[in-house]
Amino acid sequence: MSTGRPKVWINGRLAERIDALDRGLQYGDGIFETMRLCDSRIRLLEFHLQRLRAGLARLNIQLPANIRTELSQVAARHADGVLKLIVTRGVGPRGYRPDRAARPTRVLSFEHMPVQGQSAALPARVRVCSIKLGQNPALAGLKTLNRLESVLARSEWSHAGIWEGLMRDEDDNFVSGTMSNLFVRRRSVLLTPSLHSCGVAGVMRRWVIKTAPTLKLRVVVGRVRWADIGSAEEVFMSNAIVGVKSVRSCEWRQQRRSAHFQNFTVAEQLRLRLCRL
Amino acid sequence: MSTGRPKVWINGRLAERIDALDRGLQYGDGIFETMRLCDSRIRLLEFHLQRLRAGLARLNIQLPANIRTELSQVAARHADGVLKLIVTRGVGPRGYRPDRAARPTRVLSFEHMPVQGQSAALPARVRVCSIKLGQNPALAGLKTLNRLESVLARSEWSHAGIWEGLMRDEDDNFVSGTMSNLFVRRRSVLLTPSLHSCGVAGVMRRWVIKTAPTLKLRVVVGRVRWADIGSAEEVFMSNAIVGVKSVRSCEWRQQRRSAHFQNFTVAEQLRLRLCRL
Repeated sequence: MSTGRPKVWINGRLAERIDALDRGLQYGDGIFETMRLCDSRIRLLEFHLQRLRAGLARLNIQLPANIRTELSQVAARHADGVLKLIVTRGVGPRGYRPDRAARPTRVLSFEHMPVQGQSAALPARVRVCSIKLGQNPALAGLKTLNRLESVLARSEWSHAGIWEGLMRDEDDNFVSGTMSNLFVRRRSVLLTPSLHSCGVAGVMRRWVIKTAPTLKLRVVVGRVRWADIGSAEEVFMSNAIVGVKSVRSCEWRQQRRSAHFQNFTVAEQLRLRLCRL
Repeated sequence: MSTGRPKVWINGRLAERIDALDRGLQYGDGIFETMRLCDSRIRLLEFHLQRLRAGLARLNIQLPANIRTELSQVAARHADGVLKLIVTRGVGPRGYRPDRAARPTRVLSFEHMPVQGQSAALPARVRVCSIKLGQNPALAGLKTLNRLESVLARSEWSHAGIWEGLMRDEDDNFVSGTMSNLFVRRRSVLLTPSLHSCGVAGVMRRWVIKTAPTLKLRVVVGRVRWADIGSAEEVFMSNAIVGVKSVRSCEWRQQRRSAHFQNFTVAEQLRLRLCRL
C-alpha cells in the first residue's frame, strides 16, 4: 500500500483525469513503464526508454518527443519513489482501427515507495497460479495495458506472506511471476524463461542477463519446467521496483508439490551490484 | 466515421474525463458492451445485460446496481445510434491486486450511427489477418478491455472495400472477425467457431444460434478450418451494431487462397427476422 494519491501529469500538465474516449481505456491500446527513482535518478533509465521505444514501434504508436526531458524534470523534483509512465495511442473514434491522426497520450505518475509488507532483502514465498498466460508472439515481451491475466493471477491469493505467483503458459512452461521475471540457478547456469510467446521482458531481467556473466554465470534463455525449479540450487525474481528478490519456497498446491531453497548467494551478489548502479 | 464527439456519462453524470488511476486504463481491468439503439429501444438488451453480468462475475467485479435504469433513461432520450457501456473495477492503488474496496466505474457513451462506407445489406469482402488470437480459457468469450489483438489485426489493412478481417488461433482454426462472429453454412448445417479458448461471444452470435433452428438449420459450434470456408455455400458475420452481414469473398493472401460466395439466403432471412425484433 502506498501513502496517498500519486501525483499525475497528463501530457506534461498536472491533472487527475484523462479523456474517457482515450484508446488506452477503450482498448488497452498502449504501453507502460514502471520505474524506480533513487536519489532523483531513474534506475535503468536507458533500458526503460529502449523498451518503451520498441514497444510503441511494435504497436505503431508514435514515440512522444519529449519523454526523456519530462522524466528527468519529474525525477529532479523528487528523491525516491516510483514513476509510472503510460503512453497510449490517444483519443480516437470508436472502432478498433487506429486513427492515423491520433496523437499519443502520456500519463506520468509519481508515488512514494510502497511500505513493504516484508523486508525486500528477506527471501520470499511464492506460489504457482492456476490462471495461465495466453500465447501471442505479436505481443510477447511488451508491457502493454492489456494486463487482465496478471490481475486475475494476482487475485488468486490474499495471504500477505506470499510475495508473488508464478505463471505458466498453456504447455506448463513457467514464464514469469505476475509482476516479475524468474531466474533459476543450478551451479553456474542461470536459466530464465524465453519470452517469445508470452510474458513481459522486464528491464531488471535484462540487467540480470547482462550482469550475470560478470559473476561467472552462464545465462540460458529457454524453457523452464517444474523439474528445473524443483532441482534448482537458487531461485530469484526480478522487477524494476524491487530489484532482485530471493525465493525461499515455491508451492504448487494443485499438484501437491513444493520446493525449498536455502542458497541466496547469486541474488545477494546481484543486489550488491544493483546498489552501485 | 461518426459525426462529432459522442456524449459520455461517467457514473451517471455527463462528463468527458475519467480518473487516470482507474484500473480500466491502467490494466484494461473491465468489460464493455456495444449496443444498437433503434427507435429508443436497445436491441438484444437482455442478452447484453446477461453477458455483462457473466463477464463481471468472471472478473469478480461488482455489477453496478442501476445499469438497466441508466441505459433505459439514455435510450429514451435518443432515437437511433450506438450505446457503449464500459464497466471497470474502478480506481485503486498501483499493482495488479484488485482492491476489494474499489467501486466499479461506469462509462456510458452515445453516438449517432456511423455513416457506412457501404450499404449494410451489400455482401462484404473479408480477408484473413496475420495476427492470431492468443488462447486463454479464463478470458475466452468475454468482451474485456484487453483488445490489442483486435487493434493490431484491424490495422493490417486500410482498403475501404474490405469490411472485416478473420482471425485464427495458434492452430489455424478460424475464430472470429476483429469485431464480429463468423458463420459458415453448407446445406442445412450452420457452423460457427467454438469460443472456449479465445474470441468474444457476441450477443448477435447468440441470437443467430437461437434463431437458426427456426429456419430449419442445425447449428454446430466447433472447429472451423479453411476447408470449411472454402467449401461453404454461404458465409456471414454477426455483430450487435451491424446485425448479420453477408460475405461475398474471403481472401487469404499469405496462402494465395480465396473463396467466393453467391448465396446470401440465410443471412437475408436472418436480417428480415432482425427487423422485427
